[in-house]
Amino acid sequence: MNTFGNIFRLTTFGESHGPALGGVIDGMPSGIHINLEKIQAQLRRRRPGQSSIVSPRNEPDEVQILSGLLDGVTTGAPIGFTIPNTNTNPKDYDEMLHTYRPSHADYTYAAKYGIRDHRGGGRSSARETVARVVGGSFAAQALDFLGIKVYAYTSTVGNITLNAPYTHYDPALIDSNPVRCPDPDTAERMIALLNRVKSAGDTVGGIITGVIKGCPPGLGEPVAGKLHAQLAAAMLSINAAKGFDYGMGFEGAGRLGTEMIDTFTVENGRIHTRTNHSGGIQGGISNGQDIYFRVAFKPVATLLRDVSTVTDTLQKTVLHARGRHDPCVLPRAVPVVEAMAAMVILDNWLLAKTSHM
Amino acid sequence: MNTFGNIFRLTTFGESHGPALGGVIDGMPSGIHINLEKIQAQLRRRRPGQSSIVSPRNEPDEVQILSGLLDGVTTGAPIGFTIPNTNTNPKDYDEMLHTYRPSHADYTYAAKYGIRDHRGGGRSSARETVARVVGGSFAAQALDFLGIKVYAYTSTVGNITLNAPYTHYDPALIDSNPVRCPDPDTAERMIALLNRVKSAGDTVGGIITGVIKGCPPGLGEPVAGKLHAQLAAAMLSINAAKGFDYGMGFEGAGRLGTEMIDTFTVENGRIHTRTNHSGGIQGGISNGQDIYFRVAFKPVATLLRDVSTVTDTLQKTVLHARGRHDPCVLPRAVPVVEAMAAMVILDNWLLAKTSHM
Amino acid sequence: MNTFGNIFRLTTFGESHGPALGGVIDGMPSGIHINLEKIQAQLRRRRPGQSSIVSPRNEPDEVQILSGLLDGVTTGAPIGFTIPNTNTNPKDYDEMLHTYRPSHADYTYAAKYGIRDHRGGGRSSARETVARVVGGSFAAQALDFLGIKVYAYTSTVGNITLNAPYTHYDPALIDSNPVRCPDPDTAERMIALLNRVKSAGDTVGGIITGVIKGCPPGLGEPVAGKLHAQLAAAMLSINAAKGFDYGMGFEGAGRLGTEMIDTFTVENGRIHTRTNHSGGIQGGISNGQDIYFRVAFKPVATLLRDVSTVTDTLQKTVLHARGRHDPCVLPRAVPVVEAMAAMVILDNWLLAKTSHM
Amino acid sequence: MNTFGNIFRLTTFGESHGPALGGVIDGMPSGIHINLEKIQAQLRRRRPGQSSIVSPRNEPDEVQILSGLLDGVTTGAPIGFTIPNTNTNPKDYDEMLHTYRPSHADYTYAAKYGIRDHRGGGRSSARETVARVVGGSFAAQALDFLGIKVYAYTSTVGNITLNAPYTHYDPALIDSNPVRCPDPDTAERMIALLNRVKSAGDTVGGIITGVIKGCPPGLGEPVAGKLHAQLAAAMLSINAAKGFDYGMGFEGAGRLGTEMIDTFTVENGRIHTRTNHSGGIQGGISNGQDIYFRVAFKPVATLLRDVSTVTDTLQKTVLHARGRHDPCVLPRAVPVVEAMAAMVILDNWLLAKTSHM
Repeated sequence: MNTFGNIFRLTTFGESHGPALGGVIDGMPSGIHINLEKIQAQLRRRRPGQSSIVSPRNEPDEVQILSGLLDGVTTGAPIGFTIPNTNTNPKDYDEMLHTYRPSHADYTYAAKYGIRDHRGGGRSSARETVARVVGGSFAAQALDFLGIKVYAYTSTVGNITLNAPYTHYDPALIDSNPVRCPDPDTAERMIALLNRVKSAGDTVGGIITGVIKGCPPGLGEPVAGKLHAQLAAAMLSINAAKGFDYGMGFEGAGRLGTEMIDTFTVENGRIHTRTNHSGGIQGGISNGQDIYFRVAFKPVATLLRDVSTVTDTLQKTVLHARGRHDPCVLPRAVPVVEAMAAMVILDNWLLAKTSHM
Repeated sequence: MNTFGNIFRLTTFGESHGPALGGVIDGMPSGIHINLEKIQAQLRRRRPGQSSIVSPRNEPDEVQILSGLLDGVTTGAPIGFTIPNTNTNPKDYDEMLHTYRPSHADYTYAAKYGIRDHRGGGRSSARETVARVVGGSFAAQALDFLGIKVYAYTSTVGNITLNAPYTHYDPALIDSNPVRCPDPDTAERMIALLNRVKSAGDTVGGIITGVIKGCPPGLGEPVAGKLHAQLAAAMLSINAAKGFDYGMGFEGAGRLGTEMIDTFTVENGRIHTRTNHSGGIQGGISNGQDIYFRVAFKPVATLLRDVSTVTDTLQKTVLHARGRHDPCVLPRAVPVVEAMAAMVILDNWLLAKTSHM
Repeated sequence: MNTFGNIFRLTTFGESHGPALGGVIDGMPSGIHINLEKIQAQLRRRRPGQSSIVSPRNEPDEVQILSGLLDGVTTGAPIGFTIPNTNTNPKDYDEMLHTYRPSHADYTYAAKYGIRDHRGGGRSSARETVARVVGGSFAAQALDFLGIKVYAYTSTVGNITLNAPYTHYDPALIDSNPVRCPDPDTAERMIALLNRVKSAGDTVGGIITGVIKGCPPGLGEPVAGKLHAQLAAAMLSINAAKGFDYGMGFEGAGRLGTEMIDTFTVENGRIHTRTNHSGGIQGGISNGQDIYFRVAFKPVATLLRDVSTVTDTLQKTVLHARGRHDPCVLPRAVPVVEAMAAMVILDNWLLAKTSHM
Repeated sequence: MNTFGNIFRLTTFGESHGPALGGVIDGMPSGIHINLEKIQAQLRRRRPGQSSIVSPRNEPDEVQILSGLLDGVTTGAPIGFTIPNTNTNPKDYDEMLHTYRPSHADYTYAAKYGIRDHRGGGRSSARETVARVVGGSFAAQALDFLGIKVYAYTSTVGNITLNAPYTHYDPALIDSNPVRCPDPDTAERMIALLNRVKSAGDTVGGIITGVIKGCPPGLGEPVAGKLHAQLAAAMLSINAAKGFDYGMGFEGAGRLGTEMIDTFTVENGRIHTRTNHSGGIQGGISNGQDIYFRVAFKPVATLLRDVSTVTDTLQKTVLHARGRHDPCVLPRAVPVVEAMAAMVILDNWLLAKTSHM
């Protein structure tokens, strides 16, 4: 299964060290003028080689749009696109031909398919997310017309955490530093930690916070397609993601109802809640308040040191990773989280049109 | 959208105070002998009125199977079923006809559909999950043939938490107490807390831990249908659920790669991991180790005290809830978590058959 | 797979001789006032025992709506419903327990599932279509608001055929006779044929013509969801259906382009075609002209005479059908064709809302 | 909607005069060795410029596979591919910028999307089917392992028809002539007709017969996914297709049950039918006999003469087609019919694995 979404659907293809990655966007509403430079800008935020704290693999990640646009405007036809791989080193992976890297998907792909592409993780590589950023940028450009804005930022790296809620931080500062944390002091500490971890051949996990502003009430499907359940599935489809919560989330599980209730009021002739512990969604349907959520990422599993493992013939062995890797996925995962959120919201905006005549 | 699943699909219908709830199970594999008493036993674990710490609504929740079985064996035909509502008090909800209950789905349903069933939350009521328990029990009975076992338990209520990992607790003790916590001492403290909260007209949240044992390697779809993403969507579709993580989850986001790597070894001629920080899934595909996860639930939003709110004509008002409610959803949500997990695993077991010829 | 549709979805369940049939309608737009008597009227047109030329099985086919309506208005919630079986004679089918009826689905169900419900064809019985008539009537009542009308009639029985196009016949006359042919003289000849065939213990096939009037331009999905392809799949899902064509169909395959081109003109400020050889659809999308199509049905396979066949242990044997059967499916299939067409059109009307913002 | 299939899914993209067409094959079973030359051979059978009776547009139609293969073997990962357009003449279509070609999809696309790609029909061009031939060839190569063979041939052009059933003709002769009719004498007459029609600036319709041999019993889903309904939807998604029937189809609608019943017998320890009026499918599920079907195609709508039409501002005008066109789609549609059939059968073979444990 390589297709996301219900009405707005993205199908992706491609492996880390094949000729190209790409995808098909289906269900893109017609009549939207697309700014290709905006897509490329998001791709640059995700590309490797953008800073010293990410993988040095040098990929320009230039997208080629093959269909679906006429003079830059969406026609309703599917949008096929490719992003060529230019800096592949398949030889780096000869050692993994018969050896399973621990905490990677090598063994599980082999168990499922009886065959696996061992070159840089093949299909299981996070390089696949390049296609999602393209899809997400198309979605975001449609959401622009509706006044809906999506952004995300790094809120935790290892034991360094932003303690205040998202309302405390200025999204304009997210890209003021390579770790994409909107608090410059905290960002500096995070970068220092990443440099230490990298020097030690180690890696570290973290948390990304996502925010959706301007989402109208009424998006999301009750029961089997709750908006937050769709967001969760989208976020947990990102490589290395291990957890999702929204609103007060896990923290709210420890609270009383009297602490958590979001009472209603009326402002400017519209219904609002006085607080937003719920995170903008009630009963799986948006209520018009900000939607905010967290995504937990594990540390990257590739350690630049010896790890004990096994081969596909069940021999014990030791592997020393080569290849080019990130000490932490978060800086590059920020635009991926934004992309997935934008696609979910546009998809549900379109779906919501069908709930009445 | 009221259908869960890909191959094994459950479609549910019904409202809290309508004549009946029910559903259709499609894609149930043929040839499975179904024990109806096992279904009824799971329904009794979910039913209201089962103990003093849950809603006193008195529903027998007796399921009627209308199709799909021949002499108790599944035929491959869809299984239609109903669970009649017998103890409805629609009058309790007259006050909510034009008033939106805070932190409930009243307003969002109205925003989406322009109409809402105000009687006990209508479709948004957790009563809908009764149909999921039926679907889950069919799935679990199929998984029995494969040696796959699913169980869940209450691991946190408010500020009371089980501190040890799931391996520390005996699942046989889960039902030894009405809160469904496998540690009897902790259970007692949880029950005391629930009684205090209930007396105060308040409610409290908590966390359920789910465990899947005996799942073979190779289940789950890469990229758009990762096994944990499907589990997350399933769990977050349960009423009041606010968060999901699996393996080390949010806690693991603070760790180093060297602390988290699950190195491989060989035992009895099969590949195993020495640790299981990953939670049994790598790259979205099961690896044969135990799958374990957590689901966070917010406190029930119905407080037995005055709450300020608004009407559907934007008038401010005060609402005092009547009706019959749970001080905490967790005891009754345990079989629902189990049901959703069983359906996801069976669905993916069937799907995995299609990945090769 | 027991679910029809994309946005408006009908899932059906039930067997010929089980306790009940039924279904769930999902994606019904909210705010539509439903006239239950209209549903019942369509069910009466489909029910057995309605005339001497159909099966004498005596079923009232009274539908029970279990959810999704509030004071008769759709709420957007799924509509669960059941139709009890009241006149079952499972003993009639003891002979078929181990014997496959020729040209029925007995053998193919056994081949697929390893088990089959032998009582009246079980799930493969045309009795399943009772649930489709309910779904279709909900759809038709929504289409009423849009001014879209669907009707169908018997245009061929055996060698007796209406020779003129649909525009020649008055739909008000369709139900003036039990065979549902809008030409009373032809109807009389068809009925005479059916009586002769029935007396001989034989059966006969025929063709139903369907017409959709008032369909706006723009419905249908290009490439993989062409409107006529969706109609074809819907019609060929009806029991005994063997063929579908639309517009000039098979006859047009023998023609020249100059005979078949539908040139455009402007009437009352709107684009029309001078002729309608295309049948109201071009490139898979409706063009605002009438949509018309034909569905071919084979003769019922149950003959009231000895037929040679085999058992499930590969023994040759002779079967003499008992049970109650139709000499021709067409009179009762007319409302089923209408139901399927109404569901396809409403589904695509809702889907078309998502093609632009 | 640009995705075909349930488990084996093909998503296509691309326009007639854009940079490239292509697609993504998802759900291709792993472990199948793919012969790229076989794909190219099928593409050559579909390509324009292959003979004097088809469009002279000169396209090599060379497919580039971008993912999903490792050393020529499928890995279970999605297969992305492109087919560049090399011989585009968008200027030929300037005249159609504001004018709707009659009996084409120009007006309906504009009605649906508010915008259309006027260059050679854009997305509605039959050039899109090039991607289906690629998908179909992957499917056919998987079916080869199962001993299932699919073939199609031209059985009618205009008023020239093969009168005998498919069993009478040798599939090895299909490609012995450019019209792909397995009877050389009839082929000669068809070609003469096509040349006359072409000289007159006219076009002509026809019928393609498809045959599937070696299909095991048990494929197809009852009720909503009947095998013949899936085949019908697949065939009617092909450009210019107007009708589908299988087995005795429309002809059988005129027959008696006693003429049409396929009685069972046992041969070599397996159940067979003595006749095959049913066309290999009963109750929507294959019975192991040959599946055969017909697809009716209308005459190509592009006439090389003046036709009266309207513009997008509702002005009446006259259009004289330029561009390069086929006098008849059938010779090139034969491999497309084969491709669609192969994909449906493989998809249902995979799906059938999930009906039991």
